[in-house]
Amino acid sequence: MGPHPAVADVRRAVREALGDLAGGDLVLAACSGGADSLALAAALAFVAPRLGLRGGLVTVDHQLQEGSAERARKVAGMVLGLEPAEVLTVEVGKRGGPEAAARDARYAALGDAAARLGAKAVLLGHTRDDQAETVLLGLARGSGLRSLSGMAGVQGMYRRPFLELGRETTVAACERMGLTPWDDPHNEDRRFSRVRVRRTVLPVLEAELGPGVARALARTARLARDDADALQAWAERAFLDCALSDIPRRVTLAVPPLEELPGAVRRRVIKRAALEAGAPASGLSAAHVLAVERLITAWHGQKGVDLPGGLIAIRRYGRLILAISPIP
Amino acid sequence: MGPHPAVADVRRAVREALGDLAGGDLVLAACSGGADSLALAAALAFVAPRLGLRGGLVTVDHQLQEGSAERARKVAGMVLGLEPAEVLTVEVGKRGGPEAAARDARYAALGDAAARLGAKAVLLGHTRDDQAETVLLGLARGSGLRSLSGMAGVQGMYRRPFLELGRETTVAACERMGLTPWDDPHNEDRRFSRVRVRRTVLPVLEAELGPGVARALARTARLARDDADALQAWAERAFLDCALSDIPRRVTLAVPPLEELPGAVRRRVIKRAALEAGAPASGLSAAHVLAVERLITAWHGQKGVDLPGGLIAIRRYGRLILAISPIP
Repeated sequence: MGPHPAVADVRRAVREALGDLAGGDLVLAACSGGADSLALAAALAFVAPRLGLRGGLVTVDHQLQEGSAERARKVAGMVLGLEPAEVLTVEVGKRGGPEAAARDARYAALGDAAARLGAKAVLLGHTRDDQAETVLLGLARGSGLRSLSGMAGVQGMYRRPFLELGRETTVAACERMGLTPWDDPHNEDRRFSRVRVRRTVLPVLEAELGPGVARALARTARLARDDADALQAWAERAFLDCALSDIPRRVTLAVPPLEELPGAVRRRVIKRAALEAGAPASGLSAAHVLAVERLITAWHGQKGVDLPGGLIAIRRYGRLILAISPIP
Repeated sequence: MGPHPAVADVRRAVREALGDLAGGDLVLAACSGGADSLALAAALAFVAPRLGLRGGLVTVDHQLQEGSAERARKVAGMVLGLEPAEVLTVEVGKRGGPEAAARDARYAALGDAAARLGAKAVLLGHTRDDQAETVLLGLARGSGLRSLSGMAGVQGMYRRPFLELGRETTVAACERMGLTPWDDPHNEDRRFSRVRVRRTVLPVLEAELGPGVARALARTARLARDDADALQAWAERAFLDCALSDIPRRVTLAVPPLEELPGAVRRRVIKRAALEAGAPASGLSAAHVLAVERLITAWHGQKGVDLPGGLIAIRRYGRLILAISPIP
């Protein structure tokens, strides 16, 4: 008799995520002690030796809750068969709000640890339910395909083997493996928008639109990511086709090929050009891009468009020029 | 003093939607008597003569509610200054559920009336809030960009001038113009998924994720539609580039160019090819397309992939062939 289906599922997911690594490579599981990352660590402990890999564990102490150091030591001390098993203690700043600041501190510590330990990959326990939450949070921003793309399965050294598994699978796997997950009180703290999505928004969506909404949102993320990648590739090629000069911080594009592009690609080329010319990504809005686009699609001799970073976009003799204002 | 801002907004939206029509052209407003379409009809009555157009009104009696005929006569009898003003009485079938059946009957009647009256355009009162609802319903299906694209601003002869306006604007405009909208009891009938989205899902999203969610969803729809159009254009070109023969109901594609395409485009080409070969659109799933894609991206001599409509996809000598099974 094989393992319980949930145990088999988490092990298979981890095995499939590691297929490209070479014998002896070190893989770290990032483990908070919650059900998702605990199932991840246990699966890695099982799978790694069978693939000739070394499996390690890191757990981050954010120092945001009473007893967090003790909790982290307990996670690192679990006898799963992962070696090394380390606590990474971080100082969480304030920048971007509590969730973003904790995330930034966590990823910085994980990246440092991976470099120091020579790890080839760091596994993260995000599930399909986390993915669905991410898509809903992106939707509320309404900033297009990228914000619907959720989290990537592979992103640099980070890998997310569980993006196709529901949270119920990691919970069941822990139970079957005799592991008691830790319930992070932050997961109940309704000051966090993600917690509100998990506890209220998704249940309401499931109740009103039928079960399977989380699955549908995760599928949307996968499709949106592929679509965004394809459009980005097209825009990159189109940018190179239109670009006429490469003076630093000054971008000149030929207007006629821009006229031929579909709007979705043309606007990506304009965004690419503005960033290349030095516009700060954080300040460049869709409205800026649309205003520049009108120099191409609704040209009637209008004056230049001011862009963040002291830039201006002007049209002159069939060319679109983006550079520091004023352009001589 | 000009008109109230809400009145100015609905008039401006209708004026902008009619800019391309020629003097004397007939434009119909489809009006249920609800706030959105009542504001639409009143705005058309104001705008049409000023643009040299003729404005008419049609209202559909679905015969689904007690007193619907009387209600429709009242709508058609309103003194707005639209001529003709007609009741279209339809028989609603059962196909696809109550909402889809009513919609099908309504559009069939609108299309017939437009043809009979020689109208150049039919205006529909859908607002930004309707668009947000449509996006959420599409999300729950999880079938990609097209299902996130919501309703088009222009679709054949149909035009939706109010997709950028909130429902509160049409309500305020009616009030200011002294028009009393009809509250359709169907708008409170929770058997309809759209009603549940409107009454429960969107308010919860706004409460938990902040105001502006409807606006963000409508923005998502606009971006998704443009993105989907661009990818469709790319896929169409790629399909023509790869297609090797044009025997009816048999499509042969060269594998090497398919290998070079981004997945999002390749899968659209495969879908296009399957439809061209005769697969019924309703039966062709994402899983079918992915299975065919593996003949290109994960080729190890596997056998053909069965597709709906008695089709099969096989790979042979560097060619992908889709045709009625078996392929000789």
